[in-house]
Amino acid sequence: MKPVDPEFRARVTESFKRQSIMGLLGAELTRIDAGLVEVTLPYRADLCQQHGFFHAGVTSTIADSAGGYAAYSLFPAGAAVLTVEFKINLLAPAKGEKLVAIGAVINPGKTLTISDVEVHAVSGAETRLCAKMQQTLIRRDGAEIED
Amino acid sequence: MKPVDPEFRARVTESFKRQSIMGLLGAELTRIDAGLVEVTLPYRADLCQQHGFFHAGVTSTIADSAGGYAAYSLFPAGAAVLTVEFKINLLAPAKGEKLVAIGAVINPGKTLTISDVEVHAVSGAETRLCAKMQQTLIRRDGAEIED
Amino acid sequence: MKPVDPEFRARVTESFKRQSIMGLLGAELTRIDAGLVEVTLPYRADLCQQHGFFHAGVTSTIADSAGGYAAYSLFPAGAAVLTVEFKINLLAPAKGEKLVAIGAVINPGKTLTISDVEVHAVSGAETRLCAKMQQTLIRRDGAEIED
Amino acid sequence: MKPVDPEFRARVTESFKRQSIMGLLGAELTRIDAGLVEVTLPYRADLCQQHGFFHAGVTSTIADSAGGYAAYSLFPAGAAVLTVEFKINLLAPAKGEKLVAIGAVINPGKTLTISDVEVHAVSGAETRLCAKMQQTLIRRDGAEIED
Repeated sequence: MKPVDPEFRARVTESFKRQSIMGLLGAELTRIDAGLVEVTLPYRADLCQQHGFFHAGVTSTIADSAGGYAAYSLFPAGAAVLTVEFKINLLAPAKGEKLVAIGAVINPGKTLTISDVEVHAVSGAETRLCAKMQQTLIRRDGAEIED
Repeated sequence: MKPVDPEFRARVTESFKRQSIMGLLGAELTRIDAGLVEVTLPYRADLCQQHGFFHAGVTSTIADSAGGYAAYSLFPAGAAVLTVEFKINLLAPAKGEKLVAIGAVINPGKTLTISDVEVHAVSGAETRLCAKMQQTLIRRDGAEIED
Repeated sequence: MKPVDPEFRARVTESFKRQSIMGLLGAELTRIDAGLVEVTLPYRADLCQQHGFFHAGVTSTIADSAGGYAAYSLFPAGAAVLTVEFKINLLAPAKGEKLVAIGAVINPGKTLTISDVEVHAVSGAETRLCAKMQQTLIRRDGAEIED
Repeated sequence: MKPVDPEFRARVTESFKRQSIMGLLGAELTRIDAGLVEVTLPYRADLCQQHGFFHAGVTSTIADSAGGYAAYSLFPAGAAVLTVEFKINLLAPAKGEKLVAIGAVINPGKTLTISDVEVHAVSGAETRLCAKMQQTLIRRDGAEIED
């Protein structure tokens, strides 16, 4: 996919840093391409649900950011991204050393952009698809984000 | 709705305490009825997305627990609950002093239970519906949670 | 909810008539209020899945129109409605004399409107909730519908 | 993917024929592999929404059958498939000579199976992705389908 803003990597990186929840969880941006963004989250004992796996909401949080920034990477400078909605299937227990969420735009648009996100649970050499999200994002001018 | 386990409140409370992410976020169980559970999350600056609102993933996290425990409250003792999938619409900016997620079972079942969750953003006397989730939960025996 | 166009009933009725699939299925508009539209579909043996119940896609078709026209009823004259996406849970076998889909706007907006739709299976005096949809609609000017 | 029932093609074909709605719409099974099923629907003027495109519910109907039979192809003989829920994004106007829905299992399971479905609008040599579905199916014994 073709980015309209050649500085999209700096723009994504800067916005991600302002997502304070990413710092709290310990999530990191590990790949930024045009229309494809990866977020990695190392395991910590305080990110879990009642059985000691990553909580579905934590999985959703990094998936939402990966898909949202995949869309944002294709936006012009000055635009903002907001999540309209997403749907996520939890396919397997989210357990392992880390989660890796890969968000990819499947339908870019002037107003709405659709992303697909896969979340993989990684333990040593083993990787398992543990969640899949389908997500709708909206592009707004910076001044419209309250609407 | 009729609970099969009269001790459902203690069971929900105990399981919620084991969700370590709730402690990290500062979320609290504020209501437990049969088929209806409420989770409240006070605002903190480290729970946000890039514009200073609660991150959609944080909203989803408390919504997922509210809907999941609403289902769990109707299960027999010894059963476990896992989220199969959910879909959430972010209707308005999630900003204010706190978020309140109210999960309600709309279709209980032997295997699958469906919950609806509303998340309200509260600021002083003002309350605004900021997210709505439709969620599918599965009941498992305690021994099956790895599957 | 307040309609901006006092002629919304005529506008919904006229647009529904142009949905040729409604004629093929035998679906009818049975209620039009501002932000709330009902579509009724009598049982026919050629609307079914492999077990003789209404096909999930048929249930979705009338639910999509009910929710879409609930949104459309709040639009100004000259605007068009398109479905962005929806999610539907099939809660119980869709069997009986007729299906009744009730679409209700839960969040109207300038660009996006969110509707909830319930589908009930009716047999004599018995009514059972058999499906629930959460749906996102977009408002377009008449000239933009190709985009 | 490995089918457990070597007669899965005959089983899918036979069940599809019992879906009476497929006959009404004019939809045909055009590919059956283990975990992958394609359904094709030629354009007809009575399958449309108000602007003359295929109705979103019609698109959903063939997508639901494609994804459901992709799951069913992996089931043992004697099992039944029911749709638990699905979410579909309508990405582009569904217009053209025909729609082709390709359903592919992404996570087979003993109880629940998850399929992804892409729907393409085809006009001459041109093909455009017009819808994407993420779907949850449940496997039941033949005797349980009322539950």
